[in-house]
Amino acid sequence: MSKLKKITVLGGGTGTFVVLTGLKKYPIDLGVIVSMMDSGGSTGKLRDQLGVLPPGDLRQCLVALSEAPLLWRQLFLYRFSTGDMAGHNFGNIFLSALEKVCQDYNQVVDTASFVLKTKGKVIPVTFDKTHLCVKYQDGKVIKGEGKIDENNDETSTIIKAYLEPAVKSNIKAIKRITESDFLVIGPGDLYTSIIPILLVGGIKKTIQTSRAKIIYVLNLMTKFGQTTNYQASHHLKDLEKYLGRSIDYVLVNNGQIAADILKWYLSHKEKPVINDLKQNDLKTKIIEGNLISNQRIVKNPVDRLTRSILRHDPKKLAQILWQIINKKI
Amino acid sequence: MSKLKKITVLGGGTGTFVVLTGLKKYPIDLGVIVSMMDSGGSTGKLRDQLGVLPPGDLRQCLVALSEAPLLWRQLFLYRFSTGDMAGHNFGNIFLSALEKVCQDYNQVVDTASFVLKTKGKVIPVTFDKTHLCVKYQDGKVIKGEGKIDENNDETSTIIKAYLEPAVKSNIKAIKRITESDFLVIGPGDLYTSIIPILLVGGIKKTIQTSRAKIIYVLNLMTKFGQTTNYQASHHLKDLEKYLGRSIDYVLVNNGQIAADILKWYLSHKEKPVINDLKQNDLKTKIIEGNLISNQRIVKNPVDRLTRSILRHDPKKLAQILWQIINKKI
Repeated sequence: MSKLKKITVLGGGTGTFVVLTGLKKYPIDLGVIVSMMDSGGSTGKLRDQLGVLPPGDLRQCLVALSEAPLLWRQLFLYRFSTGDMAGHNFGNIFLSALEKVCQDYNQVVDTASFVLKTKGKVIPVTFDKTHLCVKYQDGKVIKGEGKIDENNDETSTIIKAYLEPAVKSNIKAIKRITESDFLVIGPGDLYTSIIPILLVGGIKKTIQTSRAKIIYVLNLMTKFGQTTNYQASHHLKDLEKYLGRSIDYVLVNNGQIAADILKWYLSHKEKPVINDLKQNDLKTKIIEGNLISNQRIVKNPVDRLTRSILRHDPKKLAQILWQIINKKI
Repeated sequence: MSKLKKITVLGGGTGTFVVLTGLKKYPIDLGVIVSMMDSGGSTGKLRDQLGVLPPGDLRQCLVALSEAPLLWRQLFLYRFSTGDMAGHNFGNIFLSALEKVCQDYNQVVDTASFVLKTKGKVIPVTFDKTHLCVKYQDGKVIKGEGKIDENNDETSTIIKAYLEPAVKSNIKAIKRITESDFLVIGPGDLYTSIIPILLVGGIKKTIQTSRAKIIYVLNLMTKFGQTTNYQASHHLKDLEKYLGRSIDYVLVNNGQIAADILKWYLSHKEKPVINDLKQNDLKTKIIEGNLISNQRIVKNPVDRLTRSILRHDPKKLAQILWQIINKKI
């Protein structure tokens, strides 16, 4: 048996959950480097109230890779709807309490991975506390991933993202990138889920010198206030700026989005990411496919929060990734 | 190898934690039937806010019997001190969330027992929601274990305890009692930790007809408002009333209590339970021994709550119980 290919996903949000869910069924050495800059909702409250590292993205990745019985995954995604814990997610509370009794954060990750029987490595990009900041063209600065994420009415464009304070990376993240055959980036909100990882000390430099091929899974829809009116090329341009190198593959959806879903998004001032890429102008190989999930879920059945109603399909996405990994595309 | 003796502890509070901690080191078939009437503190809030069964006593028993690494026991006893979860115990939150995602409460107990690697069986006395009520000699009635427990200034005597609504017992509790060689009752607050178990439908009757010998571990101190001025005989009399049969062994401390501890208790209007029992008048065998813990803990090192500062010693207590079980006393 030949050595398994080392595939590392970078991210933390719902998109990363989808990629990991799809990829974990394949015979690969799977890992995920998780953003630790989340500061919205339950995670943000726990950060403020308990002084813990943000558990939300980590929890999503752990559950995505979990091979424990369904009950454990349901438990970790369970969100209290009443009482003192209303709005808090059990998995977030679990990781926060664990951080309080553990020696260090490696032990937190190991213990949670053990109980969830995660397949693959879940690696926080840093163990240092920091906040994402973005500067807009009009000079405004917003600090905090949660606030940036909710800044939906923004009409100015983000011109710079940085961390405050600057933090150093988890040594395991650096090692993992160095050893990887492929890095899978996205889908996910460009400025709040993906770029934060690249801002951590040492990550960009390691990716630049890494032999790993980079696959970028483009979002299906723009995000108002963050990637308003962005087409495919804008996404690539921004991402490459923070990567400091070119992307090897970009995956673009060509499946049709149902009219009622489009309407819902348009009412939220969000629209499909238009593929304006031309292969002749690019080093990046453009791969198109129908990546859309047919599941018409408005709510995540386990988690109680409504996120985006349009999703990538884990199976379709993983199939194409598998073909790229095996050089069949 | 002869069949292991089946020993079943009845209770739920700190005293039960001590007995289980001591007994779990012995080669016995150990089980505990847990009171499900707790309604104070974190447990009470969770009951009210989430409509769950009271997790507090169950959690204590699970941790007492846990053979999982220290970290897991610390996690389950961890109490949040700030934020939305302030005052809540992680183990309580865990059991409450688990109840929300499980099919039934047996699955809750099994899952928690699995993760905590409990040695022995932890059996909730009932799966029905109910509250303890007590009626005092002056006619007053108090509903709710938590309120009764906190009713420290009470000068009237409890004349009746009952459950509202009446509930049926967990079939596993009945089976366990029927099969037991010994039932160990106490130490623990007579009306808030011990008697509630005996009030559940079918329990008293099963104990009456059981072949199990009953060992009663008498409390070290009176509890003001509940067993004010009680001597040993009063404890026995009240307990036998709710048992409907005589106790086979009573364990009484004869070790000396340090002067400063006595002073602390006296300032809280509590004093040592005086042994006024006379063997000639009793069917119950009186066994005396030094049962006091020398550990001068004011705070439980893992849990953050200050409970009683005087405790039975798990080792000394278990040693004597072991001798009784093996008919060496």
